[in-house]
Amino acid sequence: MLLTVGQDNAIASRLGAALADVESRFAAELISDLTCVNSLVAHVEQYRGKMLRPMLVLVPGFAVMSHDRDAASSSESLPVAHHVIATVVEMVHMATLVHDDVLDDADTRRRGRTVNAMTGNEAAVMLGDYLISHAYHLCCSLGAPAVSRFIADTTNTVCEGELLQLANRKNWELDEGTYFEMIRRKTAALTGACCRLGVTLHDMNADGTTIDDGEPLADALQDYGEKLGVAFQIVDDLLDLIGDQDTVGKSLGRDIAKGKLTLPLIRYLQSAAATEREVMLTRIESVRDDADPTVDASVTTIREHLCDSDAIDYAKQWAQKLVDQAKGSLSLLPESPAKDLLVEMADAVVSRKR
Amino acid sequence: MLLTVGQDNAIASRLGAALADVESRFAAELISDLTCVNSLVAHVEQYRGKMLRPMLVLVPGFAVMSHDRDAASSSESLPVAHHVIATVVEMVHMATLVHDDVLDDADTRRRGRTVNAMTGNEAAVMLGDYLISHAYHLCCSLGAPAVSRFIADTTNTVCEGELLQLANRKNWELDEGTYFEMIRRKTAALTGACCRLGVTLHDMNADGTTIDDGEPLADALQDYGEKLGVAFQIVDDLLDLIGDQDTVGKSLGRDIAKGKLTLPLIRYLQSAAATEREVMLTRIESVRDDADPTVDASVTTIREHLCDSDAIDYAKQWAQKLVDQAKGSLSLLPESPAKDLLVEMADAVVSRKR
Repeated sequence: MLLTVGQDNAIASRLGAALADVESRFAAELISDLTCVNSLVAHVEQYRGKMLRPMLVLVPGFAVMSHDRDAASSSESLPVAHHVIATVVEMVHMATLVHDDVLDDADTRRRGRTVNAMTGNEAAVMLGDYLISHAYHLCCSLGAPAVSRFIADTTNTVCEGELLQLANRKNWELDEGTYFEMIRRKTAALTGACCRLGVTLHDMNADGTTIDDGEPLADALQDYGEKLGVAFQIVDDLLDLIGDQDTVGKSLGRDIAKGKLTLPLIRYLQSAAATEREVMLTRIESVRDDADPTVDASVTTIREHLCDSDAIDYAKQWAQKLVDQAKGSLSLLPESPAKDLLVEMADAVVSRKR
Repeated sequence: MLLTVGQDNAIASRLGAALADVESRFAAELISDLTCVNSLVAHVEQYRGKMLRPMLVLVPGFAVMSHDRDAASSSESLPVAHHVIATVVEMVHMATLVHDDVLDDADTRRRGRTVNAMTGNEAAVMLGDYLISHAYHLCCSLGAPAVSRFIADTTNTVCEGELLQLANRKNWELDEGTYFEMIRRKTAALTGACCRLGVTLHDMNADGTTIDDGEPLADALQDYGEKLGVAFQIVDDLLDLIGDQDTVGKSLGRDIAKGKLTLPLIRYLQSAAATEREVMLTRIESVRDDADPTVDASVTTIREHLCDSDAIDYAKQWAQKLVDQAKGSLSLLPESPAKDLLVEMADAVVSRKR
């Protein structure tokens, strides 16, 4: 997510410094005395992409600083807790990527080979476990049980979303409501939690407790993060369907091969005439689990049919609507370069090509 | 682990009540509003076996109560923290079982089908993640960051052990030192942590901090748990090799099929004459990853050769030696029915047939 951040280079440079610190903390947390562990971790660090989730902790953190304090504070650093939690959410996200690639039999991620393709599913399962264990370990270093419990509560929800999605593979009757519930849990729960923590970590007491009894600003920012997360997942699903694999840099077309219904297909199946629907279902069912979607003729035809219908535009409109709602949730924040950045990040979710 | 507990039915009944409470907490923690999640969890609860790890929190807990207080306290319940942590370690263990079965392509566990065999590796990966996430979630409910961090530190080590084992699959040069290091991490780190917490949770302050600066009793009990854990794993590896599948109730012979070297094979390869060693290596390398070890002729021959050598006895002697050392670590504890039970549990590790 390459952001231009308008005129304000100060916020870009503060964010850049904070993200660099997150990268250092990430590497430091994962160091092992075992070479075999370190080389797997080094590989996974190449997965690092947009760092969206750390940004969703840090930028709301900056925005609330502008809110609480006078203008002079705009050069201040965030409390260390923001940096720690930004690292934790990146580690949680990386763990889900590693396990997702096992679930999807994906072989390419960020233009490199996935851990499962390179060293087998076994190492990928265990490496994901190593990442998630270290995420909790790092989180506990804050000495803030309520924060740790909130993170664990969030990962509970993420797992539920993934299990709901698995339970609905090849369920051609899947309705929009269940699809949204699924991605709310598997993707938006974490992005929402990031933004909430960006606010509430400012109020952490010395004993690790936080004042977070549903304060309006925390609720509003969590809402921003959740809406943005849902929109992000819709666009991710669209890219899997109609993106350019070289641009996106990861295995695409996996959703159809794996029987994962996403918004365009749900829309198509629910609005197509009965005969078209039957033809589409027959075609989808003919795609083998291990098909290569980049060359598979059925996958190509399915894509063409979706593009010829209103299904793609329908999903894009949903993403745009959610992004607009997300930006609306920022109304409680006073104007600041950090707030502008949150708006820009929301817009980038719908315009992104990778 | 069916224990007779000598003459003292009081300790057996206190332990039974505590374990029943652990089962309730386990089920309560994992309840979801999603039916698909609850049915997977219900399946995994059938994996419940010996409950060794909860016992390793609870029984040292009882033993320290007898130590600290007068005889009247022998009917007292343990602090709730012991019950919570006993549930946490059972959940961590269950998560490792679910992911281990993915790693081992195992299809039978506790006489039932494994999650991976029943619903595919994908659901098993995600269900394991759900269990581990809830384990940390429950752990954080104690409001004791140092305890949570110690648990996470332990799971870091467990994952390292698994990764070390994976990195050494089909490494026919594997030495005893690396084997012991591997099982110390993947198995004994958790059993040691259980016993340490059984002691230190008695000293938890109201703010969740514990007094644990390497007190001799905590060190001694951790040592007991680690020795017992290493012995347990050696016996587990022996059962995989020479156990009776109907008695053990899970897929056996996986270690040879998966190229996992265990103590008897390491011993054989290091002590056999050069020609015997070559014959054995050729035979092992001929076993396919997906071989059915119960009928595979090469696996049968490998077993016969190991049984004809001193390799099996050598491993059994190691297990016995470690159990004796574990019992020796109990010397700081005064005599009590709980201490007798710890001795009995150690003996049961070497005598068990499943």
